[in-house]
This record gives sequence, structure tokens and C-alpha cells, in this order.
Amino acid sequence: MKTMVVGGAGFIGTHLCEALLNNGYDVICVDNFSLGDSDHVNHLIKNAGFTLIEADASDKTELDKVFADYTPEYVFHLAANSDIQASAGNPEVEYKNTYSTTFQILDCMRRYGVKKLFFSSTSAVYGDKRDEVLDENTSNLSPISYYGAAKLGSEALISAFTYMNDLSSLVFRFPNVIGPGLTHGVVFDFMNRLAIEPGKLRILGDGRQTKPYIYVTDLVEAIIQFMDADKGVTLYNIGVDGATSVTSIADIVAEEMGLKDVKYEYTGGEGGWKGDVPRFKYCIDKVHKAGWSAKYTSDEAVRMTVRANLGGSVRE
Amino acid sequence: MKTMVVGGAGFIGTHLCEALLNNGYDVICVDNFSLGDSDHVNHLIKNAGFTLIEADASDKTELDKVFADYTPEYVFHLAANSDIQASAGNPEVEYKNTYSTTFQILDCMRRYGVKKLFFSSTSAVYGDKRDEVLDENTSNLSPISYYGAAKLGSEALISAFTYMNDLSSLVFRFPNVIGPGLTHGVVFDFMNRLAIEPGKLRILGDGRQTKPYIYVTDLVEAIIQFMDADKGVTLYNIGVDGATSVTSIADIVAEEMGLKDVKYEYTGGEGGWKGDVPRFKYCIDKVHKAGWSAKYTSDEAVRMTVRANLGGSVRE
Repeated sequence: MKTMVVGGAGFIGTHLCEALLNNGYDVICVDNFSLGDSDHVNHLIKNAGFTLIEADASDKTELDKVFADYTPEYVFHLAANSDIQASAGNPEVEYKNTYSTTFQILDCMRRYGVKKLFFSSTSAVYGDKRDEVLDENTSNLSPISYYGAAKLGSEALISAFTYMNDLSSLVFRFPNVIGPGLTHGVVFDFMNRLAIEPGKLRILGDGRQTKPYIYVTDLVEAIIQFMDADKGVTLYNIGVDGATSVTSIADIVAEEMGLKDVKYEYTGGEGGWKGDVPRFKYCIDKVHKAGWSAKYTSDEAVRMTVRANLGGSVRE
Repeated sequence: MKTMVVGGAGFIGTHLCEALLNNGYDVICVDNFSLGDSDHVNHLIKNAGFTLIEADASDKTELDKVFADYTPEYVFHLAANSDIQASAGNPEVEYKNTYSTTFQILDCMRRYGVKKLFFSSTSAVYGDKRDEVLDENTSNLSPISYYGAAKLGSEALISAFTYMNDLSSLVFRFPNVIGPGLTHGVVFDFMNRLAIEPGKLRILGDGRQTKPYIYVTDLVEAIIQFMDADKGVTLYNIGVDGATSVTSIADIVAEEMGLKDVKYEYTGGEGGWKGDVPRFKYCIDKVHKAGWSAKYTSDEAVRMTVRANLGGSVRE
């Protein structure tokens, strides 16, 4: 089967392309290399089933040409701005890279008769509901970040396009994803800052922001396991056991880097930045009942990520 | 107070501009005249508090200039494609006219420090939940039309922009709105068709699609009543007592036009077109408790609309 991974040279996309190739699928990897990088997928180019295309999925003309040239049977849509903090001052980034990519991809699928979709959504669609346990039936979704808003808008588009065009759409709402090849986020930042200045570490917020971190291979296995979805929209919260505070992440990074007595300097406040949800509780019963669970806890994912990236696979 | 009504020359917008002027507000009416028409607001131009601007709210540059020239204190955002049936074959209409207008308006409000918003949302955000009673806490919103998807995406944007920029946002989800000056929809279509060919009437679907119709002055009174909203997002379902079937609408139109023995030709099927929600039940307890209720039932609204428009105020 010919699959297309949009955002395929990004952090999660790279791992997904690998897994799809390992499972015998052909992969058209589409990326505009704004966050993704062709270096990330260089090791896949020798694979006969792998095609790398530079195109901007938010550009109707460019994306249409890709669909005309390589009409896939399955589209994995991972194209998005993935740095919530960065878009807090510039919502247009989310309008273009997160929402408009979804619209153009769905509209190409409609025009070219492509029926199968995977979409990477996020816990950020819920907004700040720190006192609720969030499951797929939680109501009053109220994103507080432009990123969460663009992802929730994307889910709404998927709902309508799926109904109107008889699609089979798999949607995962996942929390922070980490692992080898990480390109941004708190683990990435802490490693980089401590590499430059090992004695002290600036920490956004009060360090008690506590979220679940999932290891990227766990996530990719779930995508492969459920990719053959029924008609309609199938929605899962994807998550792990436990959660890790920002201060714990700092401790793990320092320990794995062999640093002692690092001085933590907290900027203060509950969230790391405006639009950051400081903590949330995720119900993942639905996906557990469907037969998947993560191999690694949140703390394990953090430690494995630090080790993998110290081993040289952090990509700038 | 200086208010701006985007989509102010449309059907609802015209009535809202009038009401705001009558309540002593200055009104900047912004419209691209794609669905609205300057003829609709010609009678307001002599009013010193009224300014008419032709601009496309989905165009960042055009809208920015309007905000720079006339920075309002309050924005009423009614700009949208309002013909769901028409966009079923061309979702790009909703992307541009319904979603992108919302994004550009919110982003202008952010840049120019405008803090007060009214947004016209819709029962279409719920999707086809004909067996549920729909209230503001209903979960799993699953729009089946591109229109409903773009409106739900707009609500998500409003959630994030409101949080990030300390806005006071009032959001109404309303059903079909009818009254003098109607420009499209089933009542409008039936009147036009019967004027041309009085002996027979083609009816989309099986005629049993049954929805609440609200009279436009009722809606506009609710907007004025609640426009001074608290910080954050205030959401209401707005509706009426009762609902009217499509066949009943045909009966009322024929009766008011003095036609007898009109032959109805049903195209068949439950919905009028793909993406049409054939019936829904709306809970309007929240807005009733807040002190508003509609003066007219759904059937009354239909009959008054036919009479008003037979009286010469249907606008093409």
C-alpha cells in the first residue's frame, strides 16, 4: 500500500516513516523542511519504497501537485507547528502550519478520492481542565493556546470531511512525545542549556508543571496497530502511566549528563508560558481496552530520551 | 461606543446594525458584498453614526487597514458563508469566508487591543445528534457539514484568543434565522419558486426535516441584551419554542401567497442534501434562565417572514 506521511521529516514523522517501511508499506514523505529536516530521513532514502518530496502542505497548488503525482491510499497527517511556546506570540503560525495544512490535505483527499487518514491531535484541545480526568467524551473543549485551537479546528474539519466523503479517519490525542531525534521541548532545551552551561539551569514556571511524556516508538506502534480504522472517525486519547514534573526532568537530565549540584533558577508562576497547561490527568482506558498500552512510563521515556540523545541522535 | 459589525450588510447584520444605531451606538459596517449587499444598508447611510466600509475580512491587509482607520471597542463578527447547501460541493468557501474571517478578525483584535467580541455560531457545530437534547455541555461535537466545521473551528479560535488576550466574548449558537430581508434558505426558495410556478413545488428530502426557526428581531434583541459579557467566553444556545417541518413551511408559504392545490414533488431521503441535519432538539434553558426568551414561536416566525417578504422586503 502506498502511504503518504505529511510532516514526514519531523520528529514523529521520521519514526513513523521508518516503521511504515519496516511493515512493508511504500512511503511518500512530504515535508516543507520548516521544522523537519531532510537530514532526518537521509538514512531512509536508499530504501526503494521511500520517496522524499519537498512541498508546503498549506499551499493548495503545491500539495495538489503531490497528490496528482503520487496519489496515495493512506495519508498520515503530522504536519503542524509543534512548538506551542513559539506560536504564543504569533498565532498566524498555527493558522498556516497547523490548520491550513489540515484543510488542504483533506481537500486533496476529497478531490483525489483518498479514503484513509491518520491525524495527530493533542491533549491541548481540552484546554486547562486540571481538575478533571480527560477522556474522549469530555465536553466543553476550550483550548487556551493557538496550537490547541488549530488542532481542535482540524478535528472539526476531519469530522465534516469524513462524513461528506466516507473517509476512515483515525485521530490520536497525545501528550508530549519524546525520544531519539527530538527537535524541541523541555527535555531538548535542558540538554542543550546544560551542555553550554553545566552549573545552572533556568526553568520556566515553578517547575511543578507535571505532564505525561510518551516515548515516540510507543506512539508509532499505536498508530500502526490501529491504522486500519473503520469508516467514520475513530478517536483515542493516547498516553502513558504516570507523569513527570519539570523539576524531575531537570534532575534526570542532570543525572544522565553526570552533573552534580546544578543550580535551578525558576522564573516562577504555574505555567511555563501563557497558554501552557501546567498539568492534566488523562484517561486512557479506551485505547487500553482496544488492546494497546505503552511499554514505557513517563519517567522512563524521559530517561531513555536523554540517553538516546546523549548518544548523538539529538538533531538540531 | 464605537462598534464594528463584520458582515454587517448581510441578512442578520443589517438588522443588528439598525438595532445598534437605535441603541445609540456608532456602527462601522464592514462587508465584502459577496452575500451582503450595499442596498441592504442604504437606508442607514443617512445616520451620522453609521459608516459603511467595503473590505474582505478574510484578507489580512484589507482588514488591518479597517482596524487601523476605525479601531472599534466592540466587534460583532457575523461574516460567514451562510448557505450551507452551497458549500457542500466546495469546502474552500467555508475555509475562506467562515474560518479565515474569524482568524483575521481575532488577530486584528489582538494587535489593536480590542477586547469585546460577539460571534454568531450555529447548531451545526453539534453534527447529527437527532436523538439527543443539545445543550451547551453536549460532548463529542461532530459537525457533518463544512459550514459546521468552520464554525466549530472558529469557536476554538475564540477560546484561545480570549484566554491569551483577556477578551470578553459572547458566542450564540443559533438555528435557522428568518425574517424581513432574507437572502436564502428554504422559506426564501419556496417563495421564489412558487412566484415563478404557482402550481407545483419541488421539495428537497421527504419534507419531514423539522427545525426551529427564529425570527431575526428576536435574535438581535438577545445579542443586545447580552452584549456586555464578562471576561472569558460566554456561550448560549439561542432558540425558540417549537420547530417547523419543511412541508409545514410549504403549506404556510402557499397559504400566505393565496395558492391552493400546490403539488409537492419530494426529492426523497431524510436530509435536504448531504451535510443537512434533518432534525434536532435544542435545550435553551440556559438563556431562558439568564432572562431572555423569544417572542415568536417557530411557526409564527415562518408566517411573519412570508408576510414581511410578500410585502416587498425580500432582497435579492
